[in-house]
Amino acid sequence: MANGEAVLQAILARRSIRRFRPDPLPREMVEKLLDAAMAAPSGNNVRPWHFVVVQDAGRRRQLSQVHRWAYMVAEAPLAIAVCADASSTEFWLDDCSAATENILIAAQALGLGGVWIGIHQSAQYQEQVRQALGIPSRYTVHCLLAIGYPAEQKPPHGRHDPAKVHWETW
Amino acid sequence: MANGEAVLQAILARRSIRRFRPDPLPREMVEKLLDAAMAAPSGNNVRPWHFVVVQDAGRRRQLSQVHRWAYMVAEAPLAIAVCADASSTEFWLDDCSAATENILIAAQALGLGGVWIGIHQSAQYQEQVRQALGIPSRYTVHCLLAIGYPAEQKPPHGRHDPAKVHWETW
Repeated sequence: MANGEAVLQAILARRSIRRFRPDPLPREMVEKLLDAAMAAPSGNNVRPWHFVVVQDAGRRRQLSQVHRWAYMVAEAPLAIAVCADASSTEFWLDDCSAATENILIAAQALGLGGVWIGIHQSAQYQEQVRQALGIPSRYTVHCLLAIGYPAEQKPPHGRHDPAKVHWETW
Repeated sequence: MANGEAVLQAILARRSIRRFRPDPLPREMVEKLLDAAMAAPSGNNVRPWHFVVVQDAGRRRQLSQVHRWAYMVAEAPLAIAVCADASSTEFWLDDCSAATENILIAAQALGLGGVWIGIHQSAQYQEQVRQALGIPSRYTVHCLLAIGYPAEQKPPHGRHDPAKVHWETW
């Protein structure tokens, strides 16, 4: 498979993985995920992102209780809280989302799976994550990622929807 | 190069490309970019995104005048306006950003370059894009992408910043 094709396949094969094997991830893999995150584009090159890397089981259990769709953080060996200095740029949500997507594609490339868990939509969710991880109040919590070796397999979405594409004009 | 390594390299090598060769892109390539876009994760699977694909030179010239950092849309053979039904989900900005990042990584994989041009930050910018492309007023314009064969080369960012990483707690 040519390199370009491998990249497209990784993008298309990525699915939200919510079941994980308990095996911890080598530090080198975690560093590669963070490399990918910080290679994301950033509006005006502000790079407002911060990443809290959580492997401790007790702390992950605490994060898993933030809302009902965060349960998989307890099982996944790795959680990453993506945070931002939101006062520094009007593009913090774009930048954190691009970094998060890079992590998920890099995880796919490394044979891992992961899921993106929204946090920024609720001040209460954000505060719970801040308290669990000692994040200063001036930082916005964008999302949590649960990542690990997948214990479930899913076929690619294959959800190219022509109704969402407009040629030249709407 | 193993497939996983190729994916990580594409993510790390991506840079914002603002100078383009005039060659038009084959329809098949454009379709691959759209495949990648719609493979992005979406909160609650709402998929609020819409894509307006613009190749006409006059229309691209019009888009290039929306603000001073959109000039490259005139030169790039392909522009994509990423839009959203923002009323349908609190995650529209996340979803559109993930789709946009997927397009940029797919472009990199195909030997193309591109740049992400912010639009959502200003109601006026949004309105200009809506008028240029006939986008109904209920849709939010997230960003523009300018894409083509690169006429500039840039080394990878290599901007892993350990100060942005917090282990276990902040």
